[in-house]
Amino acid sequence: MRIRKKNWTANELETNKHIVHEPTEYKSKWHEYFKNDNPIYLEIGCGKGRFISENAKLYPNINFIGLELQSTILAIAARKIPEEANNIALIRYDAKNLADIFEKGEIKRIYLNFSDPWPKKKNEKRRLTHKNFLDSYKKLFNNECEIFFKTDNKGLFEFSLNEFCKEDWKLSNISLDLHKSDFEGNIMTEYEEKFSSLDMPIYRLEARYKL
Amino acid sequence: MRIRKKNWTANELETNKHIVHEPTEYKSKWHEYFKNDNPIYLEIGCGKGRFISENAKLYPNINFIGLELQSTILAIAARKIPEEANNIALIRYDAKNLADIFEKGEIKRIYLNFSDPWPKKKNEKRRLTHKNFLDSYKKLFNNECEIFFKTDNKGLFEFSLNEFCKEDWKLSNISLDLHKSDFEGNIMTEYEEKFSSLDMPIYRLEARYKL
Repeated sequence: MRIRKKNWTANELETNKHIVHEPTEYKSKWHEYFKNDNPIYLEIGCGKGRFISENAKLYPNINFIGLELQSTILAIAARKIPEEANNIALIRYDAKNLADIFEKGEIKRIYLNFSDPWPKKKNEKRRLTHKNFLDSYKKLFNNECEIFFKTDNKGLFEFSLNEFCKEDWKLSNISLDLHKSDFEGNIMTEYEEKFSSLDMPIYRLEARYKL
Repeated sequence: MRIRKKNWTANELETNKHIVHEPTEYKSKWHEYFKNDNPIYLEIGCGKGRFISENAKLYPNINFIGLELQSTILAIAARKIPEEANNIALIRYDAKNLADIFEKGEIKRIYLNFSDPWPKKKNEKRRLTHKNFLDSYKKLFNNECEIFFKTDNKGLFEFSLNEFCKEDWKLSNISLDLHKSDFEGNIMTEYEEKFSSLDMPIYRLEARYKL
């Protein structure tokens, strides 16, 4: 998605207390950052932040970190978060270098919501469920990795099913039409609301891997 | 599918050489029946027999057994098979009692094609990919079970994905739109041709379980 760089972006990124400017400095110190030992859930590609900010409101005993590379989108996400929210942080960083910012065991769950499908075969290594990414995520967890994944893109979902299975991740709660399933407690992203209002199916799964 | 009982059904069932009347007698003797040691593939619910008879033609070094409970449908299937075909047998029998007719290790692959979706929750035990059926199939294999499954029914496919994963079967070649995928060598059933000509997606997967 291309978004015109907004004038207020730079200022928002500078001054919003939820945006962490030097995330590498907090590697192995994220619990100090949040001032508690609550589990930390990471959303890779948090977009405009609706999913993560609603989660943070609903689950005050979980810490949420949103990762987003595009600065204008990150600034929009930052605006959604009330000043007093203490269990949420936003980072402008690339998903390729997660081990720069998190120590092994610091993350308890990863959310991948409506990641870029990179539909061309030649770009499949860029998909966030490619084997190389799955391997990189393992470095953030102790004992068991946990990924919650949803997408509107059938091709990406099919690729991801195959990739998780090939790599021996254990799948559960697989849904081929989330909004018509009996799954409870779904929190929609901005993107999800738009697509599901057009009656397009949303695909979802949970993947776990014992280390 | 309801089919009016055809007048010629009884005669066809009686006289067609490919129809095995007392299949329990061949338990542990199927290789004698086929007069060779070639692998035996079983299609549960072979319908009008197009899938199995085309396979038998294409793969003369595999033996194919088609199971179908409805006698009129089985008679239609029998008519498709040329008299000289020696690698194919049809059985009128219930999928619930496979251990009555096959010894452990006699089957090398099971095909489930467009099985009845039994859409109501209360009937889920009747679905051929329910845990109880998956357990019963294990009794037919040595070393590794292999199931090739396809359906046009999204609900049945979703159920099956979850059931196979819950039971620790290893999935591969998962397709959410078989006819638009790069899968090669697909042989269509009568039912599949009808549905795919309406541009409805066909779902497919391969499932394996090491014993």
